Amino acid sequence: MTNTPQASSDRKGLVEVFTGDGRGKTTAALGVILRALGHDFRVCIIHFMKGNYPYGEQKTLARLPNVTLAVFGRASFVDPHNVEEEDRKEARRALNAAREAMLSGKYDLVVLDEVNVASAWGLVGLDEVIKLIEDKPQNVELILTGRYADKKLIELADLVTEMVAIKHPFDEGIEARPGLDY
Amino acid sequence: MTNTPQASSDRKGLVEVFTGDGRGKTTAALGVILRALGHDFRVCIIHFMKGNYPYGEQKTLARLPNVTLAVFGRASFVDPHNVEEEDRKEARRALNAAREAMLSGKYDLVVLDEVNVASAWGLVGLDEVIKLIEDKPQNVELILTGRYADKKLIELADLVTEMVAIKHPFDEGIEARPGLDY
Repeated sequence: MTNTPQASSDRKGLVEVFTGDGRGKTTAALGVILRALGHDFRVCIIHFMKGNYPYGEQKTLARLPNVTLAVFGRASFVDPHNVEEEDRKEARRALNAAREAMLSGKYDLVVLDEVNVASAWGLVGLDEVIKLIEDKPQNVELILTGRYADKKLIELADLVTEMVAIKHPFDEGIEARPGLDY
Repeated sequence: MTNTPQASSDRKGLVEVFTGDGRGKTTAALGVILRALGHDFRVCIIHFMKGNYPYGEQKTLARLPNVTLAVFGRASFVDPHNVEEEDRKEARRALNAAREAMLSGKYDLVVLDEVNVASAWGLVGLDEVIKLIEDKPQNVELILTGRYADKKLIELADLVTEMVAIKHPFDEGIEARPGLDY
């Protein structure tokens, strides 16, 4: 291992997937970002379905250089049994923004947050996400997060972690907590 | 869900464990930290076995307010088949620092990074880690990371995620990469 970051043109960027029902998918992506920024990587995060929810991470990320954050989706949560046209529009905007960021040459790391869910629920086509992965420039690292990652996405990825909930307090009626869960 | 952080005296801090063989344990803890800082939580991170390795995250964390980072362990990696006295001393210093931080009233979130491994390899006693958890003040959130979390730690924890490596490129000879893996 060397401590010298590779020039971005030489770097072999991978496709990573964080999926599963456990805590730690978006959270792990945030951790990768924190680490990447320490090596002066340029990072773009695209939120696919989170509206303008005031996540704690947005405040911290705003304090750091070299991070671009783009949030798509309505403020309310998507109902998978009743997806609205607006949800699809927003997810499509997110996908377009992701493509643009990935191909811009401006970023070393692009995070597609909750894209797995957006795809599983039909907000964007699985084929469109696959196409995005196939078009990834060699030196860009791409991270896809969210439950329900399709097996085709897992096949295409270089690194896949499934976060398995062994114990989760939300199951026992403890609500999501500011500062820790969002 | 409310967007207002609870006063630290009212907060019910949990014990979280990130374990398993997959990528994303320390990384998820870093993500929780990033989120917590956005809500002005005060954070202390204790590295149990990582020596003075120049992790990218250390550089980023140094840019942020309200984070204390304490790194223990020799610079070289611990050999589980040949644990040296110095490894044990360092891990014990880490445990003492963890206890002090946890009881100081200065921190809302204390992360014990790689403590699960330190315990599994006998650098610190499992009973000592259990005692630490049992002595946790109500309002402090405690996160334990690392492979090989003992089932007793899992029993004591409120939230446990197992990071399962579905695919991992290190298995295929790709080395750990600066900015992404450390």
